[in-house]
Amino acid sequence: MVCRMVRAVVLSRRPVHKGRVLDIGVERVRLPSGVETDLEMIRHPGAAAIVPLTAGGEILLVHQYRHAADGMLWEVPAGTLSPGEEPLACAHRELEEEAGMRAADMIELGPIFPAPGYTNERIHLFLARGLTPAAQHLDTDEVITEVRAVPVAEVLRQIAAAELIDAKSVVAICRAQARGLLAGGAG
Amino acid sequence: MVCRMVRAVVLSRRPVHKGRVLDIGVERVRLPSGVETDLEMIRHPGAAAIVPLTAGGEILLVHQYRHAADGMLWEVPAGTLSPGEEPLACAHRELEEEAGMRAADMIELGPIFPAPGYTNERIHLFLARGLTPAAQHLDTDEVITEVRAVPVAEVLRQIAAAELIDAKSVVAICRAQARGLLAGGAG
Repeated sequence: MVCRMVRAVVLSRRPVHKGRVLDIGVERVRLPSGVETDLEMIRHPGAAAIVPLTAGGEILLVHQYRHAADGMLWEVPAGTLSPGEEPLACAHRELEEEAGMRAADMIELGPIFPAPGYTNERIHLFLARGLTPAAQHLDTDEVITEVRAVPVAEVLRQIAAAELIDAKSVVAICRAQARGLLAGGAG
Repeated sequence: MVCRMVRAVVLSRRPVHKGRVLDIGVERVRLPSGVETDLEMIRHPGAAAIVPLTAGGEILLVHQYRHAADGMLWEVPAGTLSPGEEPLACAHRELEEEAGMRAADMIELGPIFPAPGYTNERIHLFLARGLTPAAQHLDTDEVITEVRAVPVAEVLRQIAAAELIDAKSVVAICRAQARGLLAGGAG
C-alpha cells in the first residue's frame, strides 16, 4: 500500500540512458521535507512473476543465468511487461515462455517494489494453478537451463536457509503461503 | 545460493552514469549460451536491511518517502553499505540512524538479490534483538515520518494482504519467521 498524501515535486529531469527496458535519468526533486536533491531514477515498465503450483503440491522453479549475480539463480518464472500489456496477460505469456506451461487459474497476489530506492519497477505477483504443458520458447538472450518441480515444503526450507535468494520469488511464494494457497497443492 | 559453474564473459563496458550510489553501464557480454548481447548493468555497493524485534513481539517499521514509488512505503530499516563497510556494521548503523535503536543481538538472515535482471545489488538481511533506544539521525535527503511498533501477527497479515509491498522487508520478515525467530518476541 502506497500512501500518496505526501509527494515530491520533480523540478527537472536529465536523461542519462534509454535502453530496451530501462529509462535512466537524474531527477532534481523537492522532497516533501522541502529539501532539494538529485535522485538517480530508473524508470521501468513493470513486470509479472508467477508461482506455478502443480496438482502434486510442487512449485516450478527455473534455473536462470543472471549476469548481475555472476551466476545461475533459481527463480519463479517472470518477465517484463510488453508495451500496453496487462500484468495478467504478461503472467500467462511468461509462464508459457519460461516454464512451458499454461494455467487454468491465475490468482493475483498483489504488487511489490523490488528496489524503491532507485527504480519505480513494480512486479505483479501471481499464483498459477491447473497447469498443462505447452512449448517453452525463450528469448535469444535468456539462459534457462532447467525447469524443476520442487515440493512446497522443500521450497519453504530453501527460503528459510537463504538458498532461494531472488527477492520476487521469495515474496511471491511467502505471500501465497500466507494466504493458505500452497497447502496440499491444487488441481 | 548462486551457482557459478556457468559465467558470462564481459567483452566491453561503456560507462553511462556514475552517481553517489549507482554506477551504470552497458556491458557487451557473451552469455554462457554463446549469444552476445548488450546488458544495462547497474553496479551497486550492496546494502543491509534489519528486522527490529522488540521484547514485546513487535516489529519496528519506518514510514519512508520513496520518490520511485511516488509516495510513502512502510519498510524495515535499511541502507547502502558505505565504502569498505561490512554488512553487520551497516546494519547496526542503519538501525540507529533510521529507527533510533541499538541492538544487543544482530542475527544474520543471509542475502537477497532485489533485481538480478539489471543490478548486482545484494541486500544482507538481519534480525535485531535486545533493542535499546538511541538517537535517530536521518540523512538530509531521507524522509522518515514515523517509526511504528507493529505486532508480528499484524505484520504477517499485512504481508498476506499485500499491504507491505517493499520486497526486502517482506523477504527479511518471512525468512525470520520461517526460522522460528519471530515467535513470542525476544528479550
